[in-house]
Amino acid sequence: MIKKIDHIGIAVKNLDNALKLYKDAFGLEFKSIEVVKDQKVRVATIPIGDVKIELIEPIEIDSPITKFIESRGEGIHHIALESDNISNMLKSLKEKGYKLIDEEPRIGANKAKIAFIHPKSMMGVLFELCEHAKE
Amino acid sequence: MIKKIDHIGIAVKNLDNALKLYKDAFGLEFKSIEVVKDQKVRVATIPIGDVKIELIEPIEIDSPITKFIESRGEGIHHIALESDNISNMLKSLKEKGYKLIDEEPRIGANKAKIAFIHPKSMMGVLFELCEHAKE
Repeated sequence: MIKKIDHIGIAVKNLDNALKLYKDAFGLEFKSIEVVKDQKVRVATIPIGDVKIELIEPIEIDSPITKFIESRGEGIHHIALESDNISNMLKSLKEKGYKLIDEEPRIGANKAKIAFIHPKSMMGVLFELCEHAKE
Repeated sequence: MIKKIDHIGIAVKNLDNALKLYKDAFGLEFKSIEVVKDQKVRVATIPIGDVKIELIEPIEIDSPITKFIESRGEGIHHIALESDNISNMLKSLKEKGYKLIDEEPRIGANKAKIAFIHPKSMMGVLFELCEHAKE
């Protein structure tokens, strides 16, 4: 089951400039900055209500975010939906014929289990599923 | 002040197919469908927690959404932020030199006051500001 929208991921070239922009334009402040080595990115989390904006800056030339920015420019990268059981949901999506980028969940920011669905199966939208570690 | 993320707008070629997809893949159901004549679109609202996904289908060849889909393909179109005072926020953004698509609020879906900020000022993201009518 989908519980909520967890976050919106936005690709930026320079995280410091992006944080200045979001503060200046909207008064929005980040809560944390984290390096996700697996994805070769630096991620700043900005909570807005109970949803977060994640600003994602590539830190290596071969980061998936570098490629995204080169081909599409800076902008909205993905929508993350929180699931109560990501493994079951991935299994169900696979059985129904949806194309998955991650067939098994992997560990993302904040130790959440995450998996991406291929945008070709989702009318051009890159969806991430995530399941947070029980506290 | 920004209160919350109001909705995420997603451009789709065919609304009926999109609604089937969101139901089949995620179990998500729409609450309402509305024609917004001004934008020449049909909009289905899918509530998820306290945020909404708006699926936006162009209904005229000269709709801004037709142009978006032609140049970028189907996909995420904009993020809408709810403001407690959209007129003040637009004035402040303009004074700070941000490029606005709408310098004055206009009336959008559900009688909300809305205005778009130019993505060139916002690192490639099309932001909508909205202020809901007092109930």
